Amino acid sequence: MTIDELLALSIEKPSADVYRQAKAVFDSIAKPIDGFGDFEDIICRIASIQGNISPDISKRALVIMIADNGVVAEGVSQTARDVTKKVAALMGKNKSTVGIMTSGEVDIIPINIGIDSDEPIEGIRDMKVRRGSGNIVRECAMSEDECLRAIQTGMDVAKECRRYGIIATGEMGIGNTTSSTALLCALCGLDPQAVTGRGAGLSDEALARKTDVIKRALEFHKLDRSGFSDGTAADPVCDAQDMKDVQTYTFNALCSVGGLDIAGLAGLFIGAAVYHLPIVIDGMITAVAALTAERLAGGCRHYMIASHKGRERGVAEALSRLGLKSVIDGNMALGEGSGGVILFPVIEMIMNVYNSGTRFESAQIRQYERFDK
Amino acid sequence: MTIDELLALSIEKPSADVYRQAKAVFDSIAKPIDGFGDFEDIICRIASIQGNISPDISKRALVIMIADNGVVAEGVSQTARDVTKKVAALMGKNKSTVGIMTSGEVDIIPINIGIDSDEPIEGIRDMKVRRGSGNIVRECAMSEDECLRAIQTGMDVAKECRRYGIIATGEMGIGNTTSSTALLCALCGLDPQAVTGRGAGLSDEALARKTDVIKRALEFHKLDRSGFSDGTAADPVCDAQDMKDVQTYTFNALCSVGGLDIAGLAGLFIGAAVYHLPIVIDGMITAVAALTAERLAGGCRHYMIASHKGRERGVAEALSRLGLKSVIDGNMALGEGSGGVILFPVIEMIMNVYNSGTRFESAQIRQYERFDK
Repeated sequence: MTIDELLALSIEKPSADVYRQAKAVFDSIAKPIDGFGDFEDIICRIASIQGNISPDISKRALVIMIADNGVVAEGVSQTARDVTKKVAALMGKNKSTVGIMTSGEVDIIPINIGIDSDEPIEGIRDMKVRRGSGNIVRECAMSEDECLRAIQTGMDVAKECRRYGIIATGEMGIGNTTSSTALLCALCGLDPQAVTGRGAGLSDEALARKTDVIKRALEFHKLDRSGFSDGTAADPVCDAQDMKDVQTYTFNALCSVGGLDIAGLAGLFIGAAVYHLPIVIDGMITAVAALTAERLAGGCRHYMIASHKGRERGVAEALSRLGLKSVIDGNMALGEGSGGVILFPVIEMIMNVYNSGTRFESAQIRQYERFDK
Repeated sequence: MTIDELLALSIEKPSADVYRQAKAVFDSIAKPIDGFGDFEDIICRIASIQGNISPDISKRALVIMIADNGVVAEGVSQTARDVTKKVAALMGKNKSTVGIMTSGEVDIIPINIGIDSDEPIEGIRDMKVRRGSGNIVRECAMSEDECLRAIQTGMDVAKECRRYGIIATGEMGIGNTTSSTALLCALCGLDPQAVTGRGAGLSDEALARKTDVIKRALEFHKLDRSGFSDGTAADPVCDAQDMKDVQTYTFNALCSVGGLDIAGLAGLFIGAAVYHLPIVIDGMITAVAALTAERLAGGCRHYMIASHKGRERGVAEALSRLGLKSVIDGNMALGEGSGGVILFPVIEMIMNVYNSGTRFESAQIRQYERFDK
């Protein structure tokens, strides 16, 4: 795939008709109007994405993109770089946190897209583009070609995942709250001071260092969004030429301060949109990857489902720009897709009602009327 | 039980020691510090309530208090009073919404504490105190004696539930967002305009009528909190005499504008505290019952777990006064305990990690350090 091919992708909208039909199903069930609130919207959206009034999410996968980040050399994490590989090894044996959470209910697909090692890791698919990203304070995270390959990898994985009813996204990579925060700031013109968080746990001093590293990276790569209006791909006030500029700027920012995991995830989100697959966002890194996907290929957001708000402040920033709302508010900061998979049993419970709830008619109760609010 | 016996109840605190030990377990698992955020707190609290570092929530129940409300005569609901009984009949067959959601994973205990009918309903326990509450705009919801019996009923049910590891609370009763909103306003000195919601769905006109009904009920019963400071049982700035006044005022407010379901649920919350049982709050009605319990018997809040924020604005008001935080933010407005039971599979997933997560030690990763924030 060339950069031109990537930026020329056209994303179809999910079926509005199926959405309306699904909502009518919810309204016919003996419960208050919109009683399941945002969860009704999620299930109607899954139906419209699958193009099926009886959506099926019995087959589920979690795709985890794993990569190292050169910026770890700047002291932005309290833990060592080799923890990426050690946790990947646990993932391969289904013994990492998210594997234990889901215990067989979700197919876990961990992908080595850029671990800094040449050793094979049991249970991990080797789709490595390169050994870790560059140190973003003084070089690009990856070349344009590497970035395209990482995106293509994600799209290929999405294509394979067409046999699932829904997929969740996860990541592992020491240092990736630094790269994702830098990319978010670059994409949205945010001040690092306002959104940089403590990741897996940082002292005040280390947090200040991390914030400074992000500032320096943005300055080094001149990612100041100068020349842009506030128009974004998710809220396109810009004309076609501006859109092209937004796409090019986004791709450049991803190569400059992103990471291989983020690029792979962005490809996964784009692929999910291309192959009509509902895809769940987890926390900070996946949310920034989702926003990147939307800025590269407008319309991808229609296939995304937000799960939780997370502790990193940037999650809310990314989700609001995607027009998505999280439904779990647990201050989680774990990664691996742990917030996303929490959504599965919740959706399943409510889908039980959607599929076989008692109708007003059969309960001999007059259906509630819908009032405009 | 006399009113004096009720107000003299002393609630023990859950074990702070077990809480600390449980938190140490979470910190030893190979994941970021506080990675599961609020869910870690919930699980540590369950451990401390059970007094067991290996808490067990495999046995779960949902107690649903069902009652009619005389205030329905004022046109505060778009549906008819007899819907309470019809939905109760569905609950008895496990065909109501929450029964279909949980499909056998949770024991559902629906209790008729005040349905306006003398017919027995299959599958529903008859513990009726009276046939529906009085119309609160012109009479008391119930007498003091009836209120005490409803509270005692809830406490008795909690005692029976000691065989469960955790229970959730639910309710059904057309008109009960009106009674619970009135009670919340009475307990907290809130303006009905600020917190009255659309319940199961109301037009603007009907919402204005409902708000007015609540105002009139508060005026009729002179529930203006005059003579109180802002001190509450959950945040006791008041001295012992004031505490007694708060208790008496709360009991009076419950009799005046509450409902049989609310009184039964308040008893359930008190009983859960007495018998050291973790108890989950659902939406508006159960949250107000929880606050009522705390105001009657200070310390009950330590046994309560918040689930979701809900669409009714009063939920957040009640939870904040209990010092509790919701973890689900789905704009739900369904009742029956539907928001509470959503928490069960989520807690279970995370408890899997608590019980058998991979330790830093065994993964040969240095444990994360905890920094004060």
